[in-house]
Amino acid sequence: MPLERYVTDGAPRFLEELFAFLRIPSISTLPERADDVRRAAAFVAEACERAGLRAVVHETAGHPIVVGRSEHVPGAPTVMLYGHYDVQPAEVADGWDGDPFEPRQVGDVIVARGANDDKGQVYAHIKGLETVRAVDGALPLNVIVLVEGEEEVGSVHLVPFIEEHRDALACDVIIVSDGTMAEPGRPSIAYGIRGSCGVTIEVRGARADLHSGNFGGAVPNAVQGLAQLVAGMKGADGRVRVEGFYDAVIVDEEERRRIARTPFSEPDFLELAGVTAVAGEVGFSTLERMWTRPTLELNGLVGGYGGVGSKTIIPATAVAKITCRLVPDQEPDDIVAKLRRHVERHAPAGLDVRVRSEGGSRPAVMDTRGAGLQVAARVASEVWGRPTLLVRGGGSIGIIAEFQRVLGVDPVLLGFGDKDDGIHGPNEKFGVTNYLNGIRTSARLVRALADMA
Amino acid sequence: MPLERYVTDGAPRFLEELFAFLRIPSISTLPERADDVRRAAAFVAEACERAGLRAVVHETAGHPIVVGRSEHVPGAPTVMLYGHYDVQPAEVADGWDGDPFEPRQVGDVIVARGANDDKGQVYAHIKGLETVRAVDGALPLNVIVLVEGEEEVGSVHLVPFIEEHRDALACDVIIVSDGTMAEPGRPSIAYGIRGSCGVTIEVRGARADLHSGNFGGAVPNAVQGLAQLVAGMKGADGRVRVEGFYDAVIVDEEERRRIARTPFSEPDFLELAGVTAVAGEVGFSTLERMWTRPTLELNGLVGGYGGVGSKTIIPATAVAKITCRLVPDQEPDDIVAKLRRHVERHAPAGLDVRVRSEGGSRPAVMDTRGAGLQVAARVASEVWGRPTLLVRGGGSIGIIAEFQRVLGVDPVLLGFGDKDDGIHGPNEKFGVTNYLNGIRTSARLVRALADMA
Repeated sequence: MPLERYVTDGAPRFLEELFAFLRIPSISTLPERADDVRRAAAFVAEACERAGLRAVVHETAGHPIVVGRSEHVPGAPTVMLYGHYDVQPAEVADGWDGDPFEPRQVGDVIVARGANDDKGQVYAHIKGLETVRAVDGALPLNVIVLVEGEEEVGSVHLVPFIEEHRDALACDVIIVSDGTMAEPGRPSIAYGIRGSCGVTIEVRGARADLHSGNFGGAVPNAVQGLAQLVAGMKGADGRVRVEGFYDAVIVDEEERRRIARTPFSEPDFLELAGVTAVAGEVGFSTLERMWTRPTLELNGLVGGYGGVGSKTIIPATAVAKITCRLVPDQEPDDIVAKLRRHVERHAPAGLDVRVRSEGGSRPAVMDTRGAGLQVAARVASEVWGRPTLLVRGGGSIGIIAEFQRVLGVDPVLLGFGDKDDGIHGPNEKFGVTNYLNGIRTSARLVRALADMA
Repeated sequence: MPLERYVTDGAPRFLEELFAFLRIPSISTLPERADDVRRAAAFVAEACERAGLRAVVHETAGHPIVVGRSEHVPGAPTVMLYGHYDVQPAEVADGWDGDPFEPRQVGDVIVARGANDDKGQVYAHIKGLETVRAVDGALPLNVIVLVEGEEEVGSVHLVPFIEEHRDALACDVIIVSDGTMAEPGRPSIAYGIRGSCGVTIEVRGARADLHSGNFGGAVPNAVQGLAQLVAGMKGADGRVRVEGFYDAVIVDEEERRRIARTPFSEPDFLELAGVTAVAGEVGFSTLERMWTRPTLELNGLVGGYGGVGSKTIIPATAVAKITCRLVPDQEPDDIVAKLRRHVERHAPAGLDVRVRSEGGSRPAVMDTRGAGLQVAARVASEVWGRPTLLVRGGGSIGIIAEFQRVLGVDPVLLGFGDKDDGIHGPNEKFGVTNYLNGIRTSARLVRALADMA
């Protein structure tokens, strides 16, 4: 039986099994869902076993990590498939049309929390392995399935885990399917993602809010001071004015030319973002701004009164939340230190200003000439019938740089989802076609990677 | 019986009567308290009648205005005593040590909502009139007691009322006791107050908050844009950078010299304000900044996330609340128009920015050589045993400029309260001595003003 027939015939069952996975509300951030998270780990382990792997559920100080392994094929390469079984919170009240954990098929899409991010993509790989094994009788190479339960809460226990199991996790290729395609029906591989870091700035002026008449004009205003401080962090040219912010940033002229050739529709982008104009750093295109340039984003500024009418106070306190997206070779700790120094230098007189680090993750760029990436691009093109697009991403997946650092492998970011799937939002969806093509891609990839060496 | 004996003997009863007034929760801003507000109006009217005045409760579209009048004394001057019977909201949960509407005497102070602001001061005047009538047999001049029930909600119906009753309210002197003394035991008359105006600035960028990774660097950020906009409204020199803001401001060199001679302790001020340093416009002293210089105060800026940890969004909306304190000859409408123009000129690209006026009031400065002010200063000095201080105030009492405009009289702002009485806050208080000296001052003032002409 050919591979294609197996996937087509198996589709109803593949959907049914995924639905069972989606019914488990494995929300990693909610302590009261810890048992559900554990159930989801067990579900993944069982699915691996049924696909012919030996699966182990590794306990951590947080949620478990599932590792599935195929029977050893001597001399064959090893591919790791990474994903996560935990999901973001979801409640009907957030705007869902139905129970987020009662998956349903609406036309050509599956609607449920985790349908895209990341259960649908993880399960596509497991079904891909099952397919190869059923059609070919055995897997032609070594497979490690690594599925964690803390991706939505920072993957805190995964980094020490891969450090500790560095030898057992040694591999030639890492495939990460936890993302989207650049445009519908157009397979894409992201060869770069940005890192991140964040700070909270807290400002205090007076002991308590003061009357703006009795004291106005003579005492410092915490919100005004904080607004001035954060306004000074960016110039009118969209450049970050924190000293040394761009020091480590690499500008690759060859890449700039490649990005200039990447298809991009500004009207489509404006529509997707829901804005009337693009903005950003002068001298760079919109794709460059999102993919290759670091950012300093004010995620929030809250201080004083924001309600109806007037409240004639001089606010005593204010807080600002800032996160940066980082690009190679910026280091999160270094950028936080530079932000801290900037705040110390520019803190308005009479205000007590404190900076707290909110953690971060390293940026990563992968070699586009890597064999795994090249094979994945070719296979995806065949399945989808269109040339695979090489892109970068603006977001951050902290584990990618850690895979590079600890395992010495450039992960291949091969997302099966669509941009408008609404991950983290209400009515998250995943195309049935995306799911089945994911299975096809995974199965063919396993075959093709076996021939790679 | 001399006046002093009457007040001393009457003190227990004066306190008891004030307590009955304070028991009425006449909170003008709460619709469910409308009946209590009406009861307070009736209480004032009755108190006026018992002091020998004829009192009328005038209905308005809001809360009633009480006008009490003495029997006409031909050829004698007319003094108007203005105050208000409505109070700010108060609940035990705000931090009161007991029921805010069950007044109690604690040592030398009366604790209750309205004790200082303004029931205690209004009632001191009514008891002052009673005292003169009891001791002298009749009032020596014409008295108008004007007590409104909407001071805490903007005196909206009082302005049309005085316009409509312009002739009936014609007078030679207006005494306003709705304030505090510059220092404890030191009688003070404020000969100037600031006006005010306010705007709300609303900013919208994208349709909804965006992911700071997927879009960061390429789209406008509403909070960042608003922070830049408001930061640009003030220079490092503390001067407002809204074009034309200072155009109408009068600088009076003689007054600057007078203010320089006014006692002022910076350590005491820092302690009172609860700040570590003063701030403000270069070239002006702290008293000048509060009394004679206009301000632009950011009362609040709220947008995006301000909670624990990070939220990696590009906020779609933000709101800023700004109020200005105005000095002669700034006009609230003109300053709002200038703010509007500034925002239009400096609105960051790609953001929808709206400005809404929140109303305002005119500033006022009174002639310090006015006969009424001079007499009041002399009488207060005699009662308190210390020379009366001439000061200005930083706050706003909208009706003052309207009294000037409509009735052509410079009000005398003779406050009986202490600075630390905590008006509008929990455990509002009013000294028993302040109350009784208020009665003495009022009684002696009525006598002295009769001789003025």
